[in-house]
Amino acid sequence: MAGKKLRIGLVGYGFMGRTHSNAFHQATKFFDLDYTPELVAVCGRDKANAEAHAARWGFSDVETDWQKLVERDDIDLIDIAAPNDVHHDIAIAAANAGKMVMCEKPLGRNATESKAMVAAVEKAGVANMVWYNYRRIPAVTLAKQLIDEGKLGRIFHYRAKFLQDWTIADDLPQGGAGLWRLDAAVAGSGVTGDLLAHCIDTAMWLNGPIDTVSGITETFIKERMHTLTGKVEPVKIDDASLFLARFGNGSLATFEATRYARGHKALYTLEINGEHASISWDLHDLNRIEYFDHSDEGRVRGWRSVHITDGDHPYMDKWWVPGLSIGYEHSFVHQFADFVASLNTDQPAMPDFRNALATDFVTDAVLKSAKSGQWEATGA
Amino acid sequence: MAGKKLRIGLVGYGFMGRTHSNAFHQATKFFDLDYTPELVAVCGRDKANAEAHAARWGFSDVETDWQKLVERDDIDLIDIAAPNDVHHDIAIAAANAGKMVMCEKPLGRNATESKAMVAAVEKAGVANMVWYNYRRIPAVTLAKQLIDEGKLGRIFHYRAKFLQDWTIADDLPQGGAGLWRLDAAVAGSGVTGDLLAHCIDTAMWLNGPIDTVSGITETFIKERMHTLTGKVEPVKIDDASLFLARFGNGSLATFEATRYARGHKALYTLEINGEHASISWDLHDLNRIEYFDHSDEGRVRGWRSVHITDGDHPYMDKWWVPGLSIGYEHSFVHQFADFVASLNTDQPAMPDFRNALATDFVTDAVLKSAKSGQWEATGA
Amino acid sequence: MAGKKLRIGLVGYGFMGRTHSNAFHQATKFFDLDYTPELVAVCGRDKANAEAHAARWGFSDVETDWQKLVERDDIDLIDIAAPNDVHHDIAIAAANAGKMVMCEKPLGRNATESKAMVAAVEKAGVANMVWYNYRRIPAVTLAKQLIDEGKLGRIFHYRAKFLQDWTIADDLPQGGAGLWRLDAAVAGSGVTGDLLAHCIDTAMWLNGPIDTVSGITETFIKERMHTLTGKVEPVKIDDASLFLARFGNGSLATFEATRYARGHKALYTLEINGEHASISWDLHDLNRIEYFDHSDEGRVRGWRSVHITDGDHPYMDKWWVPGLSIGYEHSFVHQFADFVASLNTDQPAMPDFRNALATDFVTDAVLKSAKSGQWEATGA
Amino acid sequence: MAGKKLRIGLVGYGFMGRTHSNAFHQATKFFDLDYTPELVAVCGRDKANAEAHAARWGFSDVETDWQKLVERDDIDLIDIAAPNDVHHDIAIAAANAGKMVMCEKPLGRNATESKAMVAAVEKAGVANMVWYNYRRIPAVTLAKQLIDEGKLGRIFHYRAKFLQDWTIADDLPQGGAGLWRLDAAVAGSGVTGDLLAHCIDTAMWLNGPIDTVSGITETFIKERMHTLTGKVEPVKIDDASLFLARFGNGSLATFEATRYARGHKALYTLEINGEHASISWDLHDLNRIEYFDHSDEGRVRGWRSVHITDGDHPYMDKWWVPGLSIGYEHSFVHQFADFVASLNTDQPAMPDFRNALATDFVTDAVLKSAKSGQWEATGA
Repeated sequence: MAGKKLRIGLVGYGFMGRTHSNAFHQATKFFDLDYTPELVAVCGRDKANAEAHAARWGFSDVETDWQKLVERDDIDLIDIAAPNDVHHDIAIAAANAGKMVMCEKPLGRNATESKAMVAAVEKAGVANMVWYNYRRIPAVTLAKQLIDEGKLGRIFHYRAKFLQDWTIADDLPQGGAGLWRLDAAVAGSGVTGDLLAHCIDTAMWLNGPIDTVSGITETFIKERMHTLTGKVEPVKIDDASLFLARFGNGSLATFEATRYARGHKALYTLEINGEHASISWDLHDLNRIEYFDHSDEGRVRGWRSVHITDGDHPYMDKWWVPGLSIGYEHSFVHQFADFVASLNTDQPAMPDFRNALATDFVTDAVLKSAKSGQWEATGA
Repeated sequence: MAGKKLRIGLVGYGFMGRTHSNAFHQATKFFDLDYTPELVAVCGRDKANAEAHAARWGFSDVETDWQKLVERDDIDLIDIAAPNDVHHDIAIAAANAGKMVMCEKPLGRNATESKAMVAAVEKAGVANMVWYNYRRIPAVTLAKQLIDEGKLGRIFHYRAKFLQDWTIADDLPQGGAGLWRLDAAVAGSGVTGDLLAHCIDTAMWLNGPIDTVSGITETFIKERMHTLTGKVEPVKIDDASLFLARFGNGSLATFEATRYARGHKALYTLEINGEHASISWDLHDLNRIEYFDHSDEGRVRGWRSVHITDGDHPYMDKWWVPGLSIGYEHSFVHQFADFVASLNTDQPAMPDFRNALATDFVTDAVLKSAKSGQWEATGA
Repeated sequence: MAGKKLRIGLVGYGFMGRTHSNAFHQATKFFDLDYTPELVAVCGRDKANAEAHAARWGFSDVETDWQKLVERDDIDLIDIAAPNDVHHDIAIAAANAGKMVMCEKPLGRNATESKAMVAAVEKAGVANMVWYNYRRIPAVTLAKQLIDEGKLGRIFHYRAKFLQDWTIADDLPQGGAGLWRLDAAVAGSGVTGDLLAHCIDTAMWLNGPIDTVSGITETFIKERMHTLTGKVEPVKIDDASLFLARFGNGSLATFEATRYARGHKALYTLEINGEHASISWDLHDLNRIEYFDHSDEGRVRGWRSVHITDGDHPYMDKWWVPGLSIGYEHSFVHQFADFVASLNTDQPAMPDFRNALATDFVTDAVLKSAKSGQWEATGA
Repeated sequence: MAGKKLRIGLVGYGFMGRTHSNAFHQATKFFDLDYTPELVAVCGRDKANAEAHAARWGFSDVETDWQKLVERDDIDLIDIAAPNDVHHDIAIAAANAGKMVMCEKPLGRNATESKAMVAAVEKAGVANMVWYNYRRIPAVTLAKQLIDEGKLGRIFHYRAKFLQDWTIADDLPQGGAGLWRLDAAVAGSGVTGDLLAHCIDTAMWLNGPIDTVSGITETFIKERMHTLTGKVEPVKIDDASLFLARFGNGSLATFEATRYARGHKALYTLEINGEHASISWDLHDLNRIEYFDHSDEGRVRGWRSVHITDGDHPYMDKWWVPGLSIGYEHSFVHQFADFVASLNTDQPAMPDFRNALATDFVTDAVLKSAKSGQWEATGA
């Protein structure tokens, strides 16, 4: 396919380590890339796990110390798929070592961390990207195109929610393998940085900057066993995080993220209402948008259920034939293909670190507002 | 409202007696009728029940012998809402007495009975109508308008089904109050004349005559207690009735009616696929059609979910405001209003007896085909 | 049917005048009432319109001055279906005259008005009720039953929205026939008192009192022709009103009402998430709830789409057979039937004035918060 | 991962060549296979295309003559992803050469071809499988489990349809690249062998053998340009194929496949109704079943929308986390993983050639019935 090599070092072999590794492989099969990914090494604290990941996914080597990974001469790109508490240090070290950097979202645990990360990659002048993968669900990408073409006209409303229910259980511990998202020291925040950040990233991509927010958070279960300490400890993350927002374009919004919405596994939904048209989308049926066009004849005007599986839909000429679905993992494939495609251009693949930082300003403002009881500006 | 009176005698105080009585009242409230219905008498075998119906619905008098009702001078219109086995005799007697006749569907228990009924009303020259009420669900009426306007172009496919599950129980008796639909002597057939007839009436109204059919029927529970005899007797009705059809316009169809489709209460659905557009409808969400228009721009083409509650939708200027639903009973109100409106015109309200007879030809052909194992012509 | 008479004087012949008049008629047909409604007089400023309403709906007389209506000796009950600005005066006068009072929602234009109305009916000791009709949609009533039975367990989240799009047009005037909802002097507020009040009433009925709120409102089109003055004037109502809430039981909520959500006619939706189960409902498909029961076996656990048309569902034994829908207007029929049934008991039909006042405290707090930029207590 | 190698030769680099090649790669990443697929050679008539496929998917070599591929010593398994007219010869030659054989569906162009293929693989004693991939959509696999566990009880009804609309265009040619499905000489039949065969395979897997059928077919556009001859020629395939069926267990069914159902891209839906429960599924939203369990409490009984993305759902422990979808291509991954897993067991991965032959008996009977106008036995 491709002449030049893109030598990758991956940090993390968990859920996100798998989605990224799959993206490296599938992008070369389904897209025409100018660079061939070479999987040089995967890094993780547990050597056996790292070796298993390397064997399965074709990494040539393993590391157990991320600093060694960053220092290797045979790597062009560091991809961070590890928990939030190490994003900051690894990204900065990688940038300082002149590597390109890709980082799982959220960028840092808060905007302070993220700003330092932005400064590092910009100073180093290295390509960088944050894995806000939902922008690359073809249905969501199509929504962006339609909005940018002006089909919706003036925007009045936006609403997004990301609903889960997997932590409704007193006996679920905080911390440890697969549960670091409940440990504030590692995660930074709870659903705010986890689920709400996705909602915010997509929202600002589609509808522009958010100016001000009024938020509320709650921790429904106050204490949980901490796996690492073996003790019952206060839960410091937020279980639910909701906010009202006013966008720069004057539209109003509700946002909600929670892990206490019984019946919903990963129900990320968004809707945008404009003067002329509206769009909604639902992660549980991700190959579809609902589209309402007010210019349709009145008698037969209604929300159109559009199955986004045709060759004229974003990315879909790379896959199968009309009517045949793709899944969650494909959003990562698309994002990596876009990143590679950007390397020979002046246009970074979005969101780059600076672009993703805007989300951290909003999540920080939401958490601040939840404490202050007042509307807070995002500084965006 | 209305100067002239329309003096009505109703036969039957059961489920259909109630829907018709309600229609008489509501049509005067929501439509501008040229005639005011006057509820002269209701007739039923059980006098106490007839009196209760009269008191509740405002009938001035009761009869227990339908022949006396038909002979009354103070009645202009006989409305037959009684079980199928008496349709034939009452309708003919009423026509012979010079009364207008409205009759619940199916017209007769078979086409032979129905032909005699048609002959009687045509000879007498009296207004007549059969209560195939689903034509007057606004969503279905809109479908008819769109098809007649040519929006679908050449038709390729039609499919309809009417699914229920209420007879899946060994201990349900046949016959008696509320259960005459399981008694072949009274009902004529099972789901063929009950549910399938509705599907056929709507289908031919929307898509023209059916030429040939291949059918199959089944009686899943072979014996049931008969309430009237007190004995376990063979069940002679069909529990399920399915057929393939070729319409006169060359389109192909599947039809299915059953009372053994677990999970469905009264799921009457229809879909029609044309060259340019398609429409589907579902009785369980009756204020809606799904409409697909191939001329929409490809990227945002999809089935439109159209909520049929606006003033430019059929009948809906008579009811509430956009977004506010009506229900099942309204189809009868519309049908009666249309009947009254037709009285001062040359155009009978459809389906009149002759028009409804066409459905009996099809149901007879389906039952014949189910026995012969061959395709049968409907004679339409 | 019924021995005693309930002599009714109705104020208003508009949209709500029709829904109430229909309720009086239909309740006697489908319910067994202890009192027979007698439609004594309808009152409205335009005599011709009042007479037309009287003729159509069977009122014996008309008045053009509500004070005369209230003073009549032959009336037991005053029903107020007129715009918001006259609720206060009529209700108090009626109570002072010893009449029962039914009033369209919202009770007053603000809690100050409403408190005086509560005081009047309580001082007079007359039966009273506010027409928050959505409590009597059978699907919503069933939700209430399930919650009260404890099937949901501890509640974590509530969300409601009422979305319309009919005022997205620069050239729509404010004020005048059918448009008083855009005139702040008449309506009191915009969507807050109109649509949001419905959401709040249902929410507190299902989930208990709301303690604190953070709200935001917007008027998207700033000036409109006023029909009464003939001039372009500032629009003083809110076009959109959103708020976050914390309920007394600790659950968190988002609420939104707007007339600028393109594509939605009257999309009132609500959802409640509990520890064990969740329920959602949608006015556009009103004969249905979605119900999720976490105790279902994991492999086949999912949201159940329950068609609320069976005899064991609230009110539905009065109507048709399983699978056959009812509509919007039936909620008023149920409410009136419940009111009549309550007259011989110690239990008022809810919401009575005092119960409905709680909604006004919340809407006032939302509007106050939208100005203050702070969380406001409802005083509930 | 895996010690032993499974050396594969693939015939065909089109749509199916891609789905199979992807399956070979992904199965090793997401499943623990006892054999490592080695992609030895891909074979196709156009050398440049074959080389491009080899480069992209990692095949070491190419062939342009399938007979050479079959004769190679370094290949264990021949996988046939070429048009229907070469299935018969290649499969038999491969079996005779002692290779395992995997073949795209339908097995042959008719049962006569298929029977010879079955005989060849059984005589050779080689592992064999037909790619009826829809059995491995996790939602469909779950349906099979639930039925086999007896949750549905006695089955009354089955219905399936596969609706497309891509050939509604007079100017679409028959034959040539991507269009061989319209050329009867290559395809054998039209939608009968293409789409209907999928419906039949799944149906008999879920519900047992089909005894008798009554079918109808139609070719709506009678003549099309043939790309290979350059002339307008009669179209000999069926555009639509519908049939009624009686299963061995006494249940009744409707089946329909068409490429003339405007608005549907690849709408494969199935539903099965049993005494106690029912299941339906839809390819356009493939990560879901609708499940109705009559034993649920009556008031809250309804179709459950079950999102099949949890670890306790078939295959889903191999992929992501609850709520995150997979797509069409994954069914091939699952099927290949199952095939490899079967190699060390006595149980062939289904459907093997003999099992798939049963579908050809049914499609032949449908086509025969469509000509005879009579019910035909399948011989099953």
